[in-house]
Amino acid sequence: MRQFNEDTLTAAVVARLKDTKDKRFREIMTSAVKHLHAFAREVHLTEEEWFEGIKFLTAVGQKCDDKRQEFILLSDILGLSMMVCALNHKSAPGATEATVLGPFFAHGAKEYEYDGDLREGCTVKGEDTLVSGRVLTTAGKPIPNATLDIWHGEFELRGRVKVNAKGEFAFKSYKPKFYSVPDDGPVGELLRATGNHKMRPAHMHAVVSAPGYQQVITHVFVEGDPYLDDDAVYAVKNSLVGKYRKLSNAAEAKKLGMSNPFLKLEWDFHLAPQAGVKARKVIAPSDAVA
Amino acid sequence: MRQFNEDTLTAAVVARLKDTKDKRFREIMTSAVKHLHAFAREVHLTEEEWFEGIKFLTAVGQKCDDKRQEFILLSDILGLSMMVCALNHKSAPGATEATVLGPFFAHGAKEYEYDGDLREGCTVKGEDTLVSGRVLTTAGKPIPNATLDIWHGEFELRGRVKVNAKGEFAFKSYKPKFYSVPDDGPVGELLRATGNHKMRPAHMHAVVSAPGYQQVITHVFVEGDPYLDDDAVYAVKNSLVGKYRKLSNAAEAKKLGMSNPFLKLEWDFHLAPQAGVKARKVIAPSDAVA
Repeated sequence: MRQFNEDTLTAAVVARLKDTKDKRFREIMTSAVKHLHAFAREVHLTEEEWFEGIKFLTAVGQKCDDKRQEFILLSDILGLSMMVCALNHKSAPGATEATVLGPFFAHGAKEYEYDGDLREGCTVKGEDTLVSGRVLTTAGKPIPNATLDIWHGEFELRGRVKVNAKGEFAFKSYKPKFYSVPDDGPVGELLRATGNHKMRPAHMHAVVSAPGYQQVITHVFVEGDPYLDDDAVYAVKNSLVGKYRKLSNAAEAKKLGMSNPFLKLEWDFHLAPQAGVKARKVIAPSDAVA
Repeated sequence: MRQFNEDTLTAAVVARLKDTKDKRFREIMTSAVKHLHAFAREVHLTEEEWFEGIKFLTAVGQKCDDKRQEFILLSDILGLSMMVCALNHKSAPGATEATVLGPFFAHGAKEYEYDGDLREGCTVKGEDTLVSGRVLTTAGKPIPNATLDIWHGEFELRGRVKVNAKGEFAFKSYKPKFYSVPDDGPVGELLRATGNHKMRPAHMHAVVSAPGYQQVITHVFVEGDPYLDDDAVYAVKNSLVGKYRKLSNAAEAKKLGMSNPFLKLEWDFHLAPQAGVKARKVIAPSDAVA
């Protein structure tokens, strides 16, 4: 085959996928090629524009290292990460809703028992907060011995928090703050070119896992945050907004090793039974750079 | 806005493009977001598949340097480069057809007068070839003082060949050979995963420019090449296949400084008048990495 024009080329490229051994990969590549070509045709992409795209994608790739994942950030701000989350995590009735993983999960966080202090080693300060709650079934029954993977922002306030035999957990942290996604790279340039801000509403990340239950990757947002309706990565759900209440109790604060007054977030996670859903390894974005 | 699902998210992301200052950029981004989301929905992309895509694009970006442009290579083998060429270069009747630029053009090649020898400094050997011809209008009239930018493969047999006042040029080179696109990177892995070969039919690249005429970026392929109907980058056009004739003429060979017998390619380029078409700077792929 030769002599392709814009009307015959797509079919020729798709036809060349016929010997792809993995049928699912063939399906994905077929759709990707069709949409890529349709995009170019739809906007009548010029060579200069194509080259700007090449340069942009190259810069995104070159910005990545073992800490920074600029392609995930791009996926996040284009709503693709949230789209993939929405497609794959229809929560069962009563189960905690899922939202995006974000680029800052890493395996191997330190383990913390009940009342553990995730503030240790944190490079930023914040308002002392006691987070406590339970991991429950969708029917409200305690799930013993679950694990929470908790983090804020860029690898801060991290820990694997153990849930006790009664399904209860408690840990010390800071109240999350709204923050900017990293904007010193090509994705920051894209945000500026499209007139968009770079802010995410304050949130704590949680991955909640327990044997026999569907793992959930989620956030707990902060009631009253100014960016709840304008999240740069489209991740906010009403059911995931939590209330940080102020408590004044000098004795309790002293016992906990926190300032008085301090904040308290009470938050329960609800997991659906596994019921044939395969357990999966959480993706660590830093694994993307070999 | 919050609480997006797979049916409402695309419109929300597109709505956020409303403050894009450059209207053309807004149009391009709108189409890109719609197709990106539609692709994810169409194949019901899983998180693991999404992450494989993130890793692949990251690897493509990290393979790029000032010589290697893996994103252009990816664009080439997905037929996107040829699509952009087809969209932007409908040749005028009688004009030489355009085809892809490829990743190995670079500005600033050495200039050669009539009968110049592009073989000098070439790291590979080949069959001695005299290339001669004319640069003509679509009506067949000579265009004086045009310039040919000529190269083969990876920055080899390069030169800016001057066309004389009668529209004639001649230069010494080697017959091109079919070759493999670079396959030691992620694009090579993609070719193997889709069961595709990596070969391009033999060709000489030419960018032909003359004041007052539309520049053409083209190839001259080699009649009889085994990959003419299976070019890895979909660039072959019937009108661009040239005949390398064998000549036995000891005196001529000696005069030219070539072996006897030697090959001769006679090839005329035809340019359409500029007629309001803006002259453009040829994109040097190596410019993509700052």
